[in-house]
Amino acid sequence: MLLEGRHTRTIWVEEEGRSIGILDQTKLPFRIERLKLETAAEVAHAISSMQVRGAPLIGAAGAHGLALALAVDPSDAALASAYDLLVRSRPTAINLKWALDRVAARVRPLPPARRAEAALADAKAICDEDVAINEGIGRHGVALIAEIAAKKKPGERVNVLTHCNAGWLATVDRGTATSPIYAAQEQGQPIHVFVDETRPRNQGAYLTAFELGEQGVSHTLISDNSGGHLMQHGLIDLVIVGTDRVTARGDVANKIGTYLKALAAKDNDVPFYVALPSPTIDFTVDDGVREIPIEERAGEEVTHVSGVGPDGEVTKVRITPERTKAANHAFDVTPARLVTGLITERGIAPATPEGLRALFPDRAA
Amino acid sequence: MLLEGRHTRTIWVEEEGRSIGILDQTKLPFRIERLKLETAAEVAHAISSMQVRGAPLIGAAGAHGLALALAVDPSDAALASAYDLLVRSRPTAINLKWALDRVAARVRPLPPARRAEAALADAKAICDEDVAINEGIGRHGVALIAEIAAKKKPGERVNVLTHCNAGWLATVDRGTATSPIYAAQEQGQPIHVFVDETRPRNQGAYLTAFELGEQGVSHTLISDNSGGHLMQHGLIDLVIVGTDRVTARGDVANKIGTYLKALAAKDNDVPFYVALPSPTIDFTVDDGVREIPIEERAGEEVTHVSGVGPDGEVTKVRITPERTKAANHAFDVTPARLVTGLITERGIAPATPEGLRALFPDRAA
Repeated sequence: MLLEGRHTRTIWVEEEGRSIGILDQTKLPFRIERLKLETAAEVAHAISSMQVRGAPLIGAAGAHGLALALAVDPSDAALASAYDLLVRSRPTAINLKWALDRVAARVRPLPPARRAEAALADAKAICDEDVAINEGIGRHGVALIAEIAAKKKPGERVNVLTHCNAGWLATVDRGTATSPIYAAQEQGQPIHVFVDETRPRNQGAYLTAFELGEQGVSHTLISDNSGGHLMQHGLIDLVIVGTDRVTARGDVANKIGTYLKALAAKDNDVPFYVALPSPTIDFTVDDGVREIPIEERAGEEVTHVSGVGPDGEVTKVRITPERTKAANHAFDVTPARLVTGLITERGIAPATPEGLRALFPDRAA
Repeated sequence: MLLEGRHTRTIWVEEEGRSIGILDQTKLPFRIERLKLETAAEVAHAISSMQVRGAPLIGAAGAHGLALALAVDPSDAALASAYDLLVRSRPTAINLKWALDRVAARVRPLPPARRAEAALADAKAICDEDVAINEGIGRHGVALIAEIAAKKKPGERVNVLTHCNAGWLATVDRGTATSPIYAAQEQGQPIHVFVDETRPRNQGAYLTAFELGEQGVSHTLISDNSGGHLMQHGLIDLVIVGTDRVTARGDVANKIGTYLKALAAKDNDVPFYVALPSPTIDFTVDDGVREIPIEERAGEEVTHVSGVGPDGEVTKVRITPERTKAANHAFDVTPARLVTGLITERGIAPATPEGLRALFPDRAA
């Protein structure tokens, strides 16, 4: 997508076989800083410190990290050690392990002299495949937007609500929940996005507002409390969110607060869609509310907020009395009954066991 | 309630006939500052600058403002001029106009020499009546808490979720939504309060967390996004919120985001109660979603957040890209079908036209 007016992926090859480039996402939206990473250790640090974030982007970064390691030392020992370093940089990121396993399996049978080149080629392929998946999501999702537009007056905008950042910045390009939005923009469909600020980590205010602004998509930031009111008054046509995990029956784990928006959508007959690359579907889990463990993070993410102060410096302020304790559940689970459909690269599946099995007969048990 | 360990109302007579005292609520929770107000103009400024806030407290402050004016000059002209000054300090506060009308009607027939004393007596009565109403709400509401406790193991805490600040700080004492909580605490009932931070103005993080902390009530701050997840996992027994206006059929206007919590409560069979002094019921309005106009406030309340910085100073930070625009709807309406009951000083009414008429036959049309 566009960054400062130029097409930019979130990860790129800086010098073939020697370095990659990333955006330091911990500095967004206050500073646009590009980082050059030259070693697997630097990539591991970028992942663990959340300079890169979002499952697809973390996977792509990990693959490039292995390639950088093999360019210096293509031995079995170096491969094993870089793999360990990288996989430990975010132990819960299933996509990271998947990407590392894929690259490692690809290069291990090769003579050491050919490993670096093959690893780099595979890392690039992983990036390109992510973009292709997201383009697929965009193609299927934009049809929903077109359907809604067809019922409106010509030129009237379609209003989409999204939560958190399932955007360009969480992927290599285009994003998942944002991909249909960017596709609509490219097709000249008037579209407007209401962006939940997404407390406590403010990914909507920090990241989604930033990338929509860079891309020139019309948008309005709202407090997470506002979505229900907007839907009651007909101001939202469609909700599209991303997800961290979808179960075999279509329950959706996503950033905390997603469930509340799904309830409001149901109560106001607003379609509620979830956009995802199909590997996000976990066919081994059924009841998301009971079976998916929800990460509890530090209370300080609730009691403290970072932003730019009057002096232009990024500052962290405490918004509570000194001794106030906070709980910080990072995700919630939206039951399948509240989900209108799942937008994948293969098409749109109903959020039902049958719907998912029909679209993914090769993966369902 | 307790402030720094001593029982304190939010408004008090400092020197009989000469000054009143208030807490400067714009400084909370970061600084506890008491202000002495000596003139109607100072009271009007305290109201318009939100140093005092909350409908009942604003009404009480207005009444005291009139009394202060009459102590200096009890003429008809002075009365009219102080009334005008005060009523314009918050034109939308129906309670302010009610209190000013009451005091003015009381003193106008009296000879000027007796007006100041009578106005002060009436202002004190308005304060005491507010406390009595809130004690009534507490008495009826604590019975609900006791019912829930009776179904638990002895000593197990009852978990209440609240949104915004309908607490001591919005009233003269005890609060509305908090009154049953304080009553439970006094009865030795183990109770825990989950406090929604209540973006964008953070009244939960700033005020409710503060007053529960001062009073020694166990509580946890949560992001507004969290309530649905907590209810799915059985961590909330009861929701109690306040309200700005209840319609004749029981629709409830309250701080933005209340509706989302009511939806989650319904979806998880958690009782959802609204606490209110009965003058909050507006029998002239029926359909709250269609008929109650919702105030839109400055977007800057969403894009900027105030807190204490690392240097201990209160600082305002911007949490968005520089050009991000925000919408800021201040209230929403929760349809009566989602409300389990309305806790008033007279008793608990079902949120139905019949329920409200039965409890308030003297007021319903």
